[in-house]
Amino acid sequence: MRLKDLGEFNFINRISKAIRLSNRVVKGIGDDAAVLKYTKDKYLLFTTDMLLEGKHFYKGSSARLVGKKALSSNISDIAAMGGIPKFAVISIGFPGSLDLKYADEIYRGIRKVADRFSVDLVGGDTVGSNKIIINIALIGEVEIKNLTLRSKAKEKDAIFVTGNIGGSIKLKHLNFTPRLEEARFLVKNFKINSMIDISDGLLADLGHILEESDKGAVIYEKTMPVSKDAIDFNSAMRDGEDFELIFTLPEKHADRLEDIWPFETRLSRIGQIRDIHKGFFLARKNGKLEKIKPSGFTHF
Amino acid sequence: MRLKDLGEFNFINRISKAIRLSNRVVKGIGDDAAVLKYTKDKYLLFTTDMLLEGKHFYKGSSARLVGKKALSSNISDIAAMGGIPKFAVISIGFPGSLDLKYADEIYRGIRKVADRFSVDLVGGDTVGSNKIIINIALIGEVEIKNLTLRSKAKEKDAIFVTGNIGGSIKLKHLNFTPRLEEARFLVKNFKINSMIDISDGLLADLGHILEESDKGAVIYEKTMPVSKDAIDFNSAMRDGEDFELIFTLPEKHADRLEDIWPFETRLSRIGQIRDIHKGFFLARKNGKLEKIKPSGFTHF
Repeated sequence: MRLKDLGEFNFINRISKAIRLSNRVVKGIGDDAAVLKYTKDKYLLFTTDMLLEGKHFYKGSSARLVGKKALSSNISDIAAMGGIPKFAVISIGFPGSLDLKYADEIYRGIRKVADRFSVDLVGGDTVGSNKIIINIALIGEVEIKNLTLRSKAKEKDAIFVTGNIGGSIKLKHLNFTPRLEEARFLVKNFKINSMIDISDGLLADLGHILEESDKGAVIYEKTMPVSKDAIDFNSAMRDGEDFELIFTLPEKHADRLEDIWPFETRLSRIGQIRDIHKGFFLARKNGKLEKIKPSGFTHF
Repeated sequence: MRLKDLGEFNFINRISKAIRLSNRVVKGIGDDAAVLKYTKDKYLLFTTDMLLEGKHFYKGSSARLVGKKALSSNISDIAAMGGIPKFAVISIGFPGSLDLKYADEIYRGIRKVADRFSVDLVGGDTVGSNKIIINIALIGEVEIKNLTLRSKAKEKDAIFVTGNIGGSIKLKHLNFTPRLEEARFLVKNFKINSMIDISDGLLADLGHILEESDKGAVIYEKTMPVSKDAIDFNSAMRDGEDFELIFTLPEKHADRLEDIWPFETRLSRIGQIRDIHKGFFLARKNGKLEKIKPSGFTHF
């Protein structure tokens, strides 16, 4: 059997099941970052992301944006846990024939994001490679009370999403700002029951929350913030790498959140968490309900 | 200018100089692992290593050994700091057409090492790739008093090396046991002034200690533990990926170390740290002194 016959998520499940973890691990594989015991008040967070030339970016891509994306995607994972990024190590595969300027620009892009979000770049590995490979691993921390998992969505929670959805392939997948400040505002001022960042697509990632939380949901076409870069509504729901946050919080706090939201970043209330037996539905503008299959981008 | 014209170490120096670090970082780029403030008594350690098919292993390589190496090389870095490995994240690039069994075997190799050294495998990333790529990032910890850097070698320190040197390309570079137990024994029972693991070759890595410590050294051909797999003495001194430990400690404790060394792993006293103005020399069996240029394996 080949890997692509099994599929990425089945393969990850298969790996995950074979791993035994110690009691130092609060949450291993299966959220945006691992959660590890640390101090009395805080957890460590640990995440990693790999970018490949020809897959996540191309020969003609701006080197600075490639570097920016490599660190920003990791910061987005830490943000989705409610945490703060701290320390990064960077593994790079470079062709020896690569123009030094291009390599420098990648690091400049990484450094700019690191400076903006106070991340220390503390080490790495460099190897010769035919194509450019960038892997960053990032340590963060989060106050125990502020940790937000995928698995804690509650019935009747309001579902929100930041920013605009879809069409990120045009530019945003390389040139985005991780929603770290927004996430920290949320966890410090509200009881956020669940949160995830959009890497596989809105339906797929909201689907992860529903699956991990054993819940259903209804989402509204009417309030969905579809990007002008998206082909149409349906593709916007499945496009990957928006790097926006989907989160849920108790219905009764939703109005206050909309009232005091202090960011320019758009905030949209796009649905409601339901009992699992009610399934996952899209309410169309015309009032019709459609059953949703939460598919999205797969890597194999 | 191309990357390979600048050279790997110059490139890393160039990157390193451009990075500003906060006071949470005790040691950034330039040792086997980064050293980060943690608790009153302990530092966090953070390291990463990337393995590429066609570079560090080949299509025909045993998948289990490839997995074993991927984690073991990181554990070796933590060992060289005097620390204990704790948590790993694994990024894998796999061709979709890869036989599932081969992928499973890689993870089995990683798991076996993780179990042996009590490392929790807590997360990762999977991407589609033409060739197999494995990047592991590893968090460890070390008691502040046991931290061993490259930069603290003292004049007259005795220089030791574990195991045998050279010829690891035959098999050992894939199938080795990181010297974690040996390193922990050393730091708990002796004042180890400096330590490094051999990835670039004995001369190059001892050269890193000398450069970081501003010291010279003399090493002895007579006591050098050259592997039977090495082509000859000279190549053994430059072969990479032995994953043995080079360390230095005050001369007066060297005899006691040799007396109480409890491991089957060979232990060899191979030289002495000298004042930097005395340079770096090899004492040949015939008594002649040769000046050494500490070159080794470079990656571009």
